[in-house]
Amino acid sequence: MSVKKILQGDVRAAARLIRRIDDGDRRVFKDLAQLYPHAGKSHVIGFTGSPGVGKSTLVDRIVSKFRDDGKTVGVLAVDPTSPFTGGAILGDRIRMQKHFLDDGVFIRSMATRGTFGGLTRSTADAIIVLDAMGKDVIIVETVGVGQDEIEIVHSAHTTVLVTVPGMGDDIQAIKAGLMEIGDLFVVNKADREGASKTIREIRMMLEMSSERRAASGWLPRVLTCVASEGRGVDEIYGAILDHRRHLLEKGGEALKRLEENRVRNHLMDLVKESLFGKVIEKVGGDAGLNGVIHEIATRKRDPYMVSQELVRGLLGGAGS
Amino acid sequence: MSVKKILQGDVRAAARLIRRIDDGDRRVFKDLAQLYPHAGKSHVIGFTGSPGVGKSTLVDRIVSKFRDDGKTVGVLAVDPTSPFTGGAILGDRIRMQKHFLDDGVFIRSMATRGTFGGLTRSTADAIIVLDAMGKDVIIVETVGVGQDEIEIVHSAHTTVLVTVPGMGDDIQAIKAGLMEIGDLFVVNKADREGASKTIREIRMMLEMSSERRAASGWLPRVLTCVASEGRGVDEIYGAILDHRRHLLEKGGEALKRLEENRVRNHLMDLVKESLFGKVIEKVGGDAGLNGVIHEIATRKRDPYMVSQELVRGLLGGAGS
Repeated sequence: MSVKKILQGDVRAAARLIRRIDDGDRRVFKDLAQLYPHAGKSHVIGFTGSPGVGKSTLVDRIVSKFRDDGKTVGVLAVDPTSPFTGGAILGDRIRMQKHFLDDGVFIRSMATRGTFGGLTRSTADAIIVLDAMGKDVIIVETVGVGQDEIEIVHSAHTTVLVTVPGMGDDIQAIKAGLMEIGDLFVVNKADREGASKTIREIRMMLEMSSERRAASGWLPRVLTCVASEGRGVDEIYGAILDHRRHLLEKGGEALKRLEENRVRNHLMDLVKESLFGKVIEKVGGDAGLNGVIHEIATRKRDPYMVSQELVRGLLGGAGS
Repeated sequence: MSVKKILQGDVRAAARLIRRIDDGDRRVFKDLAQLYPHAGKSHVIGFTGSPGVGKSTLVDRIVSKFRDDGKTVGVLAVDPTSPFTGGAILGDRIRMQKHFLDDGVFIRSMATRGTFGGLTRSTADAIIVLDAMGKDVIIVETVGVGQDEIEIVHSAHTTVLVTVPGMGDDIQAIKAGLMEIGDLFVVNKADREGASKTIREIRMMLEMSSERRAASGWLPRVLTCVASEGRGVDEIYGAILDHRRHLLEKGGEALKRLEENRVRNHLMDLVKESLFGKVIEKVGGDAGLNGVIHEIATRKRDPYMVSQELVRGLLGGAGS
C-alpha cells in the first residue's frame, strides 16, 4: 500500500517510511525490498563540512538551480551528533523554508544513533525511498568531517566538501580522510581574509594525492563562493553537472564502480545488524550478554575465546 | 613462548605481537587470550584532539611526570588517517625521542585500516599487550576528533581532550561527540589570544550537558597549559591522578562500569570480524561476494533479501 503510494510520489507515505527507518524499525525492509527495483535513477550528491561553513546556505542555492532546470529534488539532512546538539540542524532547516512551499522539493532530517549499524545504513535506506519516489536529484547534507561523514558520503555519486577561509583544522580533517573522496572542494565565504591561502592549501594536498585520483579520471576541482549572496553558485552547479557527465561517460563505467561500492557497504551493514541481533538473542538477550561481559571484565574469561564461542553457538557447531 | 616473554616485560616480543595485531593477523588471538587474565591493572589514558594542537608535546610532558613518580609507561600512537598523511605521526614520534632511551617507556604506533573491524579493536588488543607487560600507565594518543577517535577513546579510563585558542571548529567537534566522554579539557598554547574565550565556550557546553555528567559523579575539568614550556603540566598531571582516584572510590564502582563498556565494544568488534569472515567464505570468497554485489547494483536483486539470504545461509536454515 505505502509502497504503491511512494512510487506515485506521495510525500506523506515517503515521510512516514523515512521516519520508521530513522526509528530503527526493521519491518521497513519488506517495503524497501519492493521499492529497490524502482530506484537507481537519481543523482545522489553529498555535501559535508564542519558546522558553520555555510553548507545549508549553499545547498539551498543549489536546490534552487536544480529547480530552475525543472528537476525534482530530495534533501536528507543527516546529523549524527548527540540529541543535545540537535538544534543546529533545525535552525538550518528553517533557513531552507522557502523550499517547503515547493512541491518539487522534499526535505527530511535523520539522526539515528543505533548501537550497531545506524546512520550509514539508514541513510542508504532513505536514499532508496527518495530515489523510488522519482526524485531526479538527492542531496545528502551531513554535519562534520569525521568518520561517520566519510561513510555517509560513500552513499553519494558526487561529493562536495565545503570549508571557509582560515579553518586550518578543517583542512587537516579534509587531509585526514576526505581528500580521497571529494570531487569538488568549495571555499565558501571567499570574500574573507585568507581565502587564497586556503585554496592554495587544498590544491597542494590535491597534488600530493594526484596519483590516487588519476585512476578515476576525474580531477577534483577547487571552487570559491559567497553562498549567502549567491556569488560563485553557478560555477559550483556547473561543476556538479560536469561530474555527473563524467560518471556517465564510456557507458557509465565510473558510475558502475561507485554503485558497487555503495551496494557493498549497504549490504554488509544490513548483514551485521541482522547477525548481531541473533547473537544477542542466542546469548539470552541483553541480560545474558551483560552476564558474559561481567565475566570478561572480571577476567574470569577472555573476549577472544568468548567471541569464538558466541560465533560457534550461532552457527550450531559449524563455526570456529 | 612469546606470551611468557611479554609477561616478563620483553620489549621485542611485545613489539612483535603489536606489529602482528596492526597487520591484522588473526592468529594473535591465541596469544592475546593467554595474556588477558594478566591484564587489567594499568591506568589507560586517552589523549585526543585535532592535528597541530600539541598533543604529542603534552603527552611527552605527562610521560615525564609519570616517570618521575617511578611509573612505567606505554604509549600507543594511533593514526586512523590514510597512509598518505602517515608522516604526521612519525614527526610526532621524533619529538618524543628522548623517551626512546628510557627503558621504562615503550612507544608504538598503530595505523590499521581494515575494511571490517579495524582500528578500535586492534587498539584494544594492543592495550592488553602493554597491560600484561606490566605497564602502570598506558597512554593512547589519537589524531583527530572524529567518530574513530571517539570509539578509540572508549578504550580509555581517563580521557583528555586537547584544543588550542581560536579553534571554533574544534569546539564544534567537541560539542558534537566528545563532550560526553571527556574527563579533562585542556586548552594548550594558552598564552595565545582568545584562550579565555575558548575556556568560556567549553565551560558553557559542559554546563549544558551537566545532567548527563552528574550521573558519573565526576565533574569534568577545564585546564590550560603551554606544553612546550611545561607550564600548567603539573595541574594536568594532578587532575589525571584525581580522576583515577575518583574511578577507584566506593569499591571502584565507576571503574567497573567503564570496564564493562570497554569489554562490550571489544567483544562485539571481535564477533563482527569473525562473522563477516564466515559470510564471505560462505558466499564464495571475494569473487562470490562481488558477483552478488553486481546483481544488486544492477537491480536484479535487492540488498534486503540478499542480506537475509546470506544470514540464513550462514546459519544453515536456522535464520530469517
